[in-house]
Amino acid sequence: MKKLINAVDSVVTDALRGMAAAHPHELAVDLDQHIVYRRRPKEQGKVAIISGGGSGHEPLHGGFVGTGMLDAACAGEIFTSPVPDQMVAATSAVDRGAGVLHIVKNYTGDVMNFEMAAEIVGAESGIQVASVVTNDDVAVEDSLYTAGRRGVGVTVMVEKIAGAAAEQGRPLDEVAGIAARVNASGRSMGMALTSCTVPANGKPSFDLPDDEMEIGIGIHGEPGRHREKVAPAAEIAERLVTPVLAELTELESAGADEGVIAMVNGMGATPLLELYLMYGEIARLLQGAGITVARNLVGNYITSLDMAGCSLTLVRADAELLSLWDAPVNTPGLRWGV
Amino acid sequence: MKKLINAVDSVVTDALRGMAAAHPHELAVDLDQHIVYRRRPKEQGKVAIISGGGSGHEPLHGGFVGTGMLDAACAGEIFTSPVPDQMVAATSAVDRGAGVLHIVKNYTGDVMNFEMAAEIVGAESGIQVASVVTNDDVAVEDSLYTAGRRGVGVTVMVEKIAGAAAEQGRPLDEVAGIAARVNASGRSMGMALTSCTVPANGKPSFDLPDDEMEIGIGIHGEPGRHREKVAPAAEIAERLVTPVLAELTELESAGADEGVIAMVNGMGATPLLELYLMYGEIARLLQGAGITVARNLVGNYITSLDMAGCSLTLVRADAELLSLWDAPVNTPGLRWGV
Repeated sequence: MKKLINAVDSVVTDALRGMAAAHPHELAVDLDQHIVYRRRPKEQGKVAIISGGGSGHEPLHGGFVGTGMLDAACAGEIFTSPVPDQMVAATSAVDRGAGVLHIVKNYTGDVMNFEMAAEIVGAESGIQVASVVTNDDVAVEDSLYTAGRRGVGVTVMVEKIAGAAAEQGRPLDEVAGIAARVNASGRSMGMALTSCTVPANGKPSFDLPDDEMEIGIGIHGEPGRHREKVAPAAEIAERLVTPVLAELTELESAGADEGVIAMVNGMGATPLLELYLMYGEIARLLQGAGITVARNLVGNYITSLDMAGCSLTLVRADAELLSLWDAPVNTPGLRWGV
Repeated sequence: MKKLINAVDSVVTDALRGMAAAHPHELAVDLDQHIVYRRRPKEQGKVAIISGGGSGHEPLHGGFVGTGMLDAACAGEIFTSPVPDQMVAATSAVDRGAGVLHIVKNYTGDVMNFEMAAEIVGAESGIQVASVVTNDDVAVEDSLYTAGRRGVGVTVMVEKIAGAAAEQGRPLDEVAGIAARVNASGRSMGMALTSCTVPANGKPSFDLPDDEMEIGIGIHGEPGRHREKVAPAAEIAERLVTPVLAELTELESAGADEGVIAMVNGMGATPLLELYLMYGEIARLLQGAGITVARNLVGNYITSLDMAGCSLTLVRADAELLSLWDAPVNTPGLRWGV
């Protein structure tokens, strides 16, 4: 295993220390509790939003803390849920009197711990908490760490769009409703060229032969749908677009459909050159299917340590979701309009 | 070789097609000539700036085309200089009557082709051309493709800062002078955990044993200073900081020294988690050396295909350079203040 780390048991703390050093004016990082906060808390009376999950998916979640997106993010150990204590501390710290939304990816540990934290907070302090659990991965029903579909790329869109709604001063039930709507309107599918290596394990999470790829992989290396010989990018694009579109076109649109927000996301070790190339193939397929891409993201947003590969997320958007998407955001991982 | 590509001879065209599809409102991509332009050219009377080089370093250079940075970028084949025809076309297209600055990384082919293009443009159209050649890599004097020091990370800073000066309407000699000053004030050093694989070759450019790293590597896998066993991040940080600081502290400051602009750059396959971790170690060393980090960048800015590793660039900055650094920039690869 070759990694730029000091020791396997200090990876998360050391990385958070670096993040704090890199963004001293934007972020305040609690290195004991592994929580990333905004340096300047939002105004009293606005809904706050926290998220969190295992580390190893950067920039998700800590890189999305900032104006227009998250108020705080709880970092677990690599690929391991944060604990309820972290979520309780973050929720209590960010509440501005209007309640707190928890954005949770659908993994058993995350869901359980966020639920427990919400109960504790409700009982101890009376802070109103709402939750949305993302579950956009069409690859498999149930998985190694999940009952039901896994939560993956749509989490980025949920955090951005709900973050914008909260910044506008909308009440908690409305912000939570918008978050749920984004999740329900989004579907994802990923693929891997290589495995990833969890530092504490010291070896690749699974074996993938030199000439094979895995279609439908999860963001922790959980098994996908099937393996096959590595194919040209145009064919890989088809393996991702077809299953996502199959589910997406069945959805009832909540409003007038303005097209999709498309994300081609790198798994951590995939060069931007290849991500743009994949986006070109995917855009061509979507055009052929009569789908308008209203907005797009190409880059590393929800990664799997040093895995090579990519994922596609599509969200069907109406005018309201697009307008919230376009609202200013100022975080290390996503920044526009500021 | 596993890559998200269609065929080795269409990689650059396919990736540029994807880039065009991803940024339809910001970029205009000439797919025949492999030139990335701003969709909306800048106003008449302002200096224009172009750069270019071999592909495989994304987002450099095409990802830095946009307001506040480049007017156009010429993409060569992977790790291969673009040809003079491309630079002539780009220079002629972007000139707004105030001349064009060429920003060139110091590699023999690039320098020769940009010089030839400047001569052709001067002779044929009378457009004023100035050039700055970046040469910030302290690892080696002379290299596989270079006489003198190689041009690496500082190129990002030169493009950003000169871009801001051009946007302010400063004349060509002043913009070129600022570009030269940034280059002269900057030094870099890189390291690799793994080799990279050029698609046309189909195999890693060099062999690096499973327990070794290379210190002083170039962005095309050119040999560095030495190899050694992989060390903890804190020690790797020292290998990068020490030689860079040794040269940087010898420089005469052009004005009142406001500290450094620091970039910790990923080589393409390094997760953001590890880059932040490295930044933490580097920031600690700089603090210990009494160096103030005025601004920083952590991420993938000048990559080497799928190489794992990172580089450090430091630029000594005075108040003018910092103010140009802070000016708005709106490109796919760098965006703030807009």
